Amino acid sequence: MRIMILGGDGYLGWSTAMHFSRRGHDVAVVDNFTRRTMHVERGTDSLTPIRPLGERVAAWKEVTGRDIVPFVFDITEYRHLVGAFGEFAPDTIIHYGEIPSAPYSMLDRDHAVFVQKNNVVGTLNVIWGMREVLPEAHLIKLGTMGEYGTPNIDIEEGYLTVEHKGRTDTLLFPKQPGSFYHLTKVHDSNNLHFAVRTWGLRVTDLNQGVVYGTDTEETVLDERLVTRFDYDEIFGTALNRFVVQAVVGHPLTVYGKGGQTRGFLNIADTLQCVELAASHPADAGEMRIFNQFTETFSVMDLATTVQEAAEHLGYHVELRHFENPRVEAEEHYFNPVHTKLLDLGLQPRLLSETLVESMLHRVEQYKDRVNVAAIAPSTKWR
Amino acid sequence: MRIMILGGDGYLGWSTAMHFSRRGHDVAVVDNFTRRTMHVERGTDSLTPIRPLGERVAAWKEVTGRDIVPFVFDITEYRHLVGAFGEFAPDTIIHYGEIPSAPYSMLDRDHAVFVQKNNVVGTLNVIWGMREVLPEAHLIKLGTMGEYGTPNIDIEEGYLTVEHKGRTDTLLFPKQPGSFYHLTKVHDSNNLHFAVRTWGLRVTDLNQGVVYGTDTEETVLDERLVTRFDYDEIFGTALNRFVVQAVVGHPLTVYGKGGQTRGFLNIADTLQCVELAASHPADAGEMRIFNQFTETFSVMDLATTVQEAAEHLGYHVELRHFENPRVEAEEHYFNPVHTKLLDLGLQPRLLSETLVESMLHRVEQYKDRVNVAAIAPSTKWR
Repeated sequence: MRIMILGGDGYLGWSTAMHFSRRGHDVAVVDNFTRRTMHVERGTDSLTPIRPLGERVAAWKEVTGRDIVPFVFDITEYRHLVGAFGEFAPDTIIHYGEIPSAPYSMLDRDHAVFVQKNNVVGTLNVIWGMREVLPEAHLIKLGTMGEYGTPNIDIEEGYLTVEHKGRTDTLLFPKQPGSFYHLTKVHDSNNLHFAVRTWGLRVTDLNQGVVYGTDTEETVLDERLVTRFDYDEIFGTALNRFVVQAVVGHPLTVYGKGGQTRGFLNIADTLQCVELAASHPADAGEMRIFNQFTETFSVMDLATTVQEAAEHLGYHVELRHFENPRVEAEEHYFNPVHTKLLDLGLQPRLLSETLVESMLHRVEQYKDRVNVAAIAPSTKWR
Repeated sequence: MRIMILGGDGYLGWSTAMHFSRRGHDVAVVDNFTRRTMHVERGTDSLTPIRPLGERVAAWKEVTGRDIVPFVFDITEYRHLVGAFGEFAPDTIIHYGEIPSAPYSMLDRDHAVFVQKNNVVGTLNVIWGMREVLPEAHLIKLGTMGEYGTPNIDIEEGYLTVEHKGRTDTLLFPKQPGSFYHLTKVHDSNNLHFAVRTWGLRVTDLNQGVVYGTDTEETVLDERLVTRFDYDEIFGTALNRFVVQAVVGHPLTVYGKGGQTRGFLNIADTLQCVELAASHPADAGEMRIFNQFTETFSVMDLATTVQEAAEHLGYHVELRHFENPRVEAEEHYFNPVHTKLLDLGLQPRLLSETLVESMLHRVEQYKDRVNVAAIAPSTKWR
């Protein structure tokens, strides 16, 4: 396959690029370093000392002999995107190239508008660029399980068959996203669904759960190949944050009661899922939607799991209930279906104490880089 | 009431401003003349010779002795909007201030992105501005029946109660909009629903059908008070277009089979609906959604109605099936519920041959202004 990865400098983008490159595919990455500059704005940084993209690509060449082609531009600038589509001519586009932070989108009006413009326009450009230059390519677009919110019914994979007043139809599953960021993924899904219906594009929309983990088979080949690992309140996510908090002696930041339940998956399983999606492309005019996670946990489950694993390693870990900065149900029904990727062959690597221990060891390596002041929640929804 | 009308220079915005002003309310209008400049871009114009906003406001003062306060700025520029919210301090905001053309949004990538940015950012600004300056105000936001598409089940008013696997929830009705423009209204609805859930704003979302008609009680008071009337392929809508086509001897432009069925209402009923919504405001934390139309017609129904009325007045009218430039079902189920506005007291003025005749007479007055070249469809979805 010829694979172009949008957002290819990020946590998942860079890992995905190496994963496909090592398996013999031709890989290009596109990034404009938005995440790196947003960290500069916030005075925070990745826990892991990630290298500039040029160094990463050179190290990859040195270690594996393989090329990853870097493109540096902003995908909201259409001419650059169309140019790169034409030049590299991918058959598969993997689109991670969006701002993925709920708190960042809730900071104020300017951030909310920036996130919505950035994500929606980027994906519109991908849609139009495919129509213009790559009508047969397969787009794999990263959405989020957070699009669904926490409805009181089972969450199906993207679509819901409704029986209503004696008639029936299968429609996009109704969404209740919980931030201006999560809303962008809903807007994208709606725009993509229209493009697929109207122009016959091939799209797979992956509604991904919360990803955890530091390493993949490729990131451990050389320290210069390490991927981003965020732990701050803006860009970090639950499990990754708890592991860092345990290591530096910060109380685990449970928001409210901690009954919020979400889908989770290992970073290695993200790569597996994306590879399964890529090797079984959607048909022309088909928008497949997969719920991409392997297990559900409540925030309290995760906090307790990290606490126990860390205490076995000799850490003292306090669990603290912070006032919830978000507006969300802290106890709710949550039963999302997630069989389609299993049907394609996904072999989940479930969360275990061993895995948490290995994350704790990995984080210990970089504990001097932790900025403790960036951990506690300060961005409030209200 | 103190009412601020966004898009107050438009077909419905200007009519609404006069309607409320005449009934003793304090009215401000906001516009940046986007529609007028888009017509300049396309080389088209309103059938009716609308006056510059300043002249309209002065004529209104002269005829009625009442003030309509004009603000000229772009609502996508947040500082201007917040300033106007603070200065005028409306208790009711009526938001027509979006680009409403499906064909315009389908012209090419640049137009699609412009329409999505313009509409989504404008409404985000309204949301944040209300939160900041007017948290108790009531927003009446114009959506469209086109958000729903044509599902195979009855269309409820905004929400659908779903029974699924033995559980139940009431969720936003799943949408299938048919253009990048219609998608913006879905994005807005989702953004608004989040803001209402999270911040307790008061919102009424009016999913309006296709509006027809030239006159209201106020537009006929003085020729300088006439409202916009578009008939071109980009901004004109079905019935209004057919009336102009009949008068100038252009074949009626039926797209495809003409079985496409939609909700319609008279411009005078738009004013009635908006007034009913304004005088029964939503509660804090409530997003009411009304389906705002009075009757459904197929395109062929409308074409035949216009043909018959025009032939009674001595016109010869040809009906022509144009290749459908849109991607849409030409025969489909369509049964949208529309009882909530009737429950509030709406007295529909239904379409009649008399009404079509009066539109024909009104259009005759301006037939020399018609640009026949702008009538036939040329903007294709595929």
